[in-house]
Amino acid sequence: MRAALMERGRIWVDDPPEPIPGRGQVLVKSAACGICGSDLHAAAHTEEFVATSLEAGGAFKLTSLDPVVLGHEFCAEVVDFGPDTARRFRAGDLVCSVPMLRASPAIPIGYSTQTPGGFAQYMLLSEDLLIAVPTGTPAPIAALTEPMAVGLHAVRKARLRGSEAALVLGCGPVGLAVITALKAAGIGPVVAADYSAGRRAFAAGQGADISVDPRHENAFSHPDLKKPEDVVIFECVGVPGMLDNIFVNAPRNARIVVVGVCLQMDHARPLIAVNKELNIQYVLGYTIDEFSESLTSIADGRFDVDKLVTAQVGLEGVADAFTTLRQPDEHAKIIVSPWQAG
Amino acid sequence: MRAALMERGRIWVDDPPEPIPGRGQVLVKSAACGICGSDLHAAAHTEEFVATSLEAGGAFKLTSLDPVVLGHEFCAEVVDFGPDTARRFRAGDLVCSVPMLRASPAIPIGYSTQTPGGFAQYMLLSEDLLIAVPTGTPAPIAALTEPMAVGLHAVRKARLRGSEAALVLGCGPVGLAVITALKAAGIGPVVAADYSAGRRAFAAGQGADISVDPRHENAFSHPDLKKPEDVVIFECVGVPGMLDNIFVNAPRNARIVVVGVCLQMDHARPLIAVNKELNIQYVLGYTIDEFSESLTSIADGRFDVDKLVTAQVGLEGVADAFTTLRQPDEHAKIIVSPWQAG
Repeated sequence: MRAALMERGRIWVDDPPEPIPGRGQVLVKSAACGICGSDLHAAAHTEEFVATSLEAGGAFKLTSLDPVVLGHEFCAEVVDFGPDTARRFRAGDLVCSVPMLRASPAIPIGYSTQTPGGFAQYMLLSEDLLIAVPTGTPAPIAALTEPMAVGLHAVRKARLRGSEAALVLGCGPVGLAVITALKAAGIGPVVAADYSAGRRAFAAGQGADISVDPRHENAFSHPDLKKPEDVVIFECVGVPGMLDNIFVNAPRNARIVVVGVCLQMDHARPLIAVNKELNIQYVLGYTIDEFSESLTSIADGRFDVDKLVTAQVGLEGVADAFTTLRQPDEHAKIIVSPWQAG
Repeated sequence: MRAALMERGRIWVDDPPEPIPGRGQVLVKSAACGICGSDLHAAAHTEEFVATSLEAGGAFKLTSLDPVVLGHEFCAEVVDFGPDTARRFRAGDLVCSVPMLRASPAIPIGYSTQTPGGFAQYMLLSEDLLIAVPTGTPAPIAALTEPMAVGLHAVRKARLRGSEAALVLGCGPVGLAVITALKAAGIGPVVAADYSAGRRAFAAGQGADISVDPRHENAFSHPDLKKPEDVVIFECVGVPGMLDNIFVNAPRNARIVVVGVCLQMDHARPLIAVNKELNIQYVLGYTIDEFSESLTSIADGRFDVDKLVTAQVGLEGVADAFTTLRQPDEHAKIIVSPWQAG
């Protein structure tokens, strides 16, 4: 089969063997698979990514420097069944799944040399984790289930009462997922901040009430955050220094939800956080229920994500897409379609 | 009057003028006043303390390097009334008050050159902030109202449901106040950790179910913390590196209440906190209601604090007491009685 492989940052298309479904597994065609910021990071800083993964035990999954087929934001089409499967689906059905293959220990799909990710024509999924894509939802849209689940989970963990104003720092795919989930939950106003004009436009498209350029305006003091004692701040950037900056600028009693993953040692002044009695909730991933709810919300339009797919490429376009995504202005989500030419 | 003065770490007894009560103010005798860890820090690192106070705007109060009468954990005896007072109390009545003199801006009693703190024979209090000490509660015990209010506030901010196990890191006066408030709230088991055998004994005296020496045992993995998904960790040490250490050792989904004030820049690895979805609540001080409740709880025995008063000294003993308290093993709280000889 055709697949895009990645080894220490180099990305090329090759012909690895087609995988064979084992017990409880289903052979699927990868119909569409989004490129995630973590994929970019894994490619640009493979050794650091692997080291961090081993150290943190769970947050990041890549554990080998050998060639790997990335891609964990996929929508797939059922092809065939392995032994001991209930055959709940039929060949041709579109399905999604959390990016995990049942095993002991579980295999992270898209970050393992043991099984291909979504940037290959074929992959294996665990049958009991499959979720049917509702009729009428195209594969590239269903492929947004995974990143949107991240936003849904972050909003859930924020324990919102409904009266809060929200400030979303960073409008990359994670920030956009948070904004989408916030608006679907009826939270407002949502103030979004990003240095990129393109990303601010995407934020507005997902329902952000105000979009702010931090170069010209301090998002924290925006007049629409009128009840500063009831502000929830979503940190969706994930670089060192963000937290200290939030400590300095946040209003008293603010709640901070850290969704952006800072991979380095970070520094902050606790005295400022103490003085304001800030609360920080670190979040990661999503539950299986939230993943399923994300797909349902996409299918029924509560999560309006059509505008987030800004390009579709074939396997030959993966390497260029990784380069293009380093410029954050143009694209929200590039979808890889392994069966598309080019 | 006689008073212990502090200037850049030097402590001596002198005869500053007796203060004269202004509008709404009451002249009181300082009957008993505890020495706080912050007082030790203000004396040992005055310039840093003043700089941090100015930078953080509220968490710490000392703003001048000039001689100051410290002491903000006081119980006082009413002497006389200034103009525009309701005279709700009579001369001789024992009272407590939050350490704040009403003014614009408010004056922090015990950290200001504008008004003496509790290490002087006389002080001024705002009449409307006075709380009567219930009959039968001696002044040195009532003087524990302020530090116990800090523990009560921290436990309140932890939003406990009642089913949690608690881990208290550090058994100085702050940790002991937290343990006391936890046990009064019916929380258990409470595991207390401190390197000092003396402090572990105080923790047990305040009701800690288990006391652990971190040199010999990892408090986080104590078998009594059997439901690790429901552990609340109270950080009562306040030195750099504590938070990162908690990140490494805390169970998933743990809630961390930061009560110890780390005055320096701190560093921690957010990826570990992300991976465990930790929650951090920074807390500071107490509300006026919590202060009042602290006194009531001390008076009715819910907070059993008698064992925490390990020494009483007169003004001439303040300098030595500051030195003695640098050895954490022997003492919980040393009370200064400005009218006592020696």
